[in-house]
Amino acid sequence: MREKPTLLNKTVIAESRLFRIESLDIEFSNGEQRNFERLARGRPGGAVLIVPLLDKETVLLVREYAAGVHRYELGLPKGKTDAGETFIEAANRELKEEVGFGARTLFHLSSFSIAPAYLEHMTEIIIAKDLYEEKLQGDEPEELEVVPWKIDDIGGLIATGECTEARSIAALFMTLNYLKGL
Amino acid sequence: MREKPTLLNKTVIAESRLFRIESLDIEFSNGEQRNFERLARGRPGGAVLIVPLLDKETVLLVREYAAGVHRYELGLPKGKTDAGETFIEAANRELKEEVGFGARTLFHLSSFSIAPAYLEHMTEIIIAKDLYEEKLQGDEPEELEVVPWKIDDIGGLIATGECTEARSIAALFMTLNYLKGL
Repeated sequence: MREKPTLLNKTVIAESRLFRIESLDIEFSNGEQRNFERLARGRPGGAVLIVPLLDKETVLLVREYAAGVHRYELGLPKGKTDAGETFIEAANRELKEEVGFGARTLFHLSSFSIAPAYLEHMTEIIIAKDLYEEKLQGDEPEELEVVPWKIDDIGGLIATGECTEARSIAALFMTLNYLKGL
Repeated sequence: MREKPTLLNKTVIAESRLFRIESLDIEFSNGEQRNFERLARGRPGGAVLIVPLLDKETVLLVREYAAGVHRYELGLPKGKTDAGETFIEAANRELKEEVGFGARTLFHLSSFSIAPAYLEHMTEIIIAKDLYEEKLQGDEPEELEVVPWKIDDIGGLIATGECTEARSIAALFMTLNYLKGL
């Protein structure tokens, strides 16, 4: 494999409550230099996407307003870690807030990048099972609709047109393989 | 399903060469109001992710520097549409530039959002088959390494730690189902 390109210079171009835009000057191993812009991770911590398994065949999805695309999106519950929380703790809290269940068993399945060419963000995928009812009050502007879905019908889910997020789709396929023992 | 929340106000907070950050004031059907920030699509057009099938078992991946995460990422070739290009035309051009192949057959598989809570961006997934050698000069700072991969070994690909992008992973699983006739 090639040598990793060298970061010559990094500056912050713009910053808002949620985002920080950085400019990177990069030199490749062949001497070529380029400027890149990327969206840097805002505050410390990270993001989790939770796969809540009600049983071996059923995953719990949520229908939630998504401001980026300005419509409701059907997908896996997700959220950001609070200060001092591990990814597992954040996943269980978000599960209680968004879905109304806690999990007795949680484990890390995978780490996804979203658009690695221009986003620094990573998302940790956490499987949650052995669920029990427990509701925590979150900061959601409205109650989320919880939608149970047969996890072997990912094609049917995509065909609804309501589930478009690559992270949810990839996590569901990986969970299906995990459940099949693949 | 609930009524879609109302967009009360939209302003641009910051803008750079690549990005535009917008602030949205949203009112939910229960009367709750919230402010959201999102990254809006910059210029017109869109993004394509190409699944180049060398044969029924082999997909061609590229190892490309990804500035967002500042390392090489192994994944599907991708790019943005140029002015006046359809998604199919953009996919074939990017395939020639990044992989050194053209395709006699290209078709649309799916549309993915990336992080719909805060990104407006969508990506069109295009399957490319019946490949033939043709190299076009692109604007890449260095030649990309082309890596043939058995498409039924997505687990092995993820296990390398080099392929983290949810879009690539989701597109490969969907292509595998397409090839199996599912």
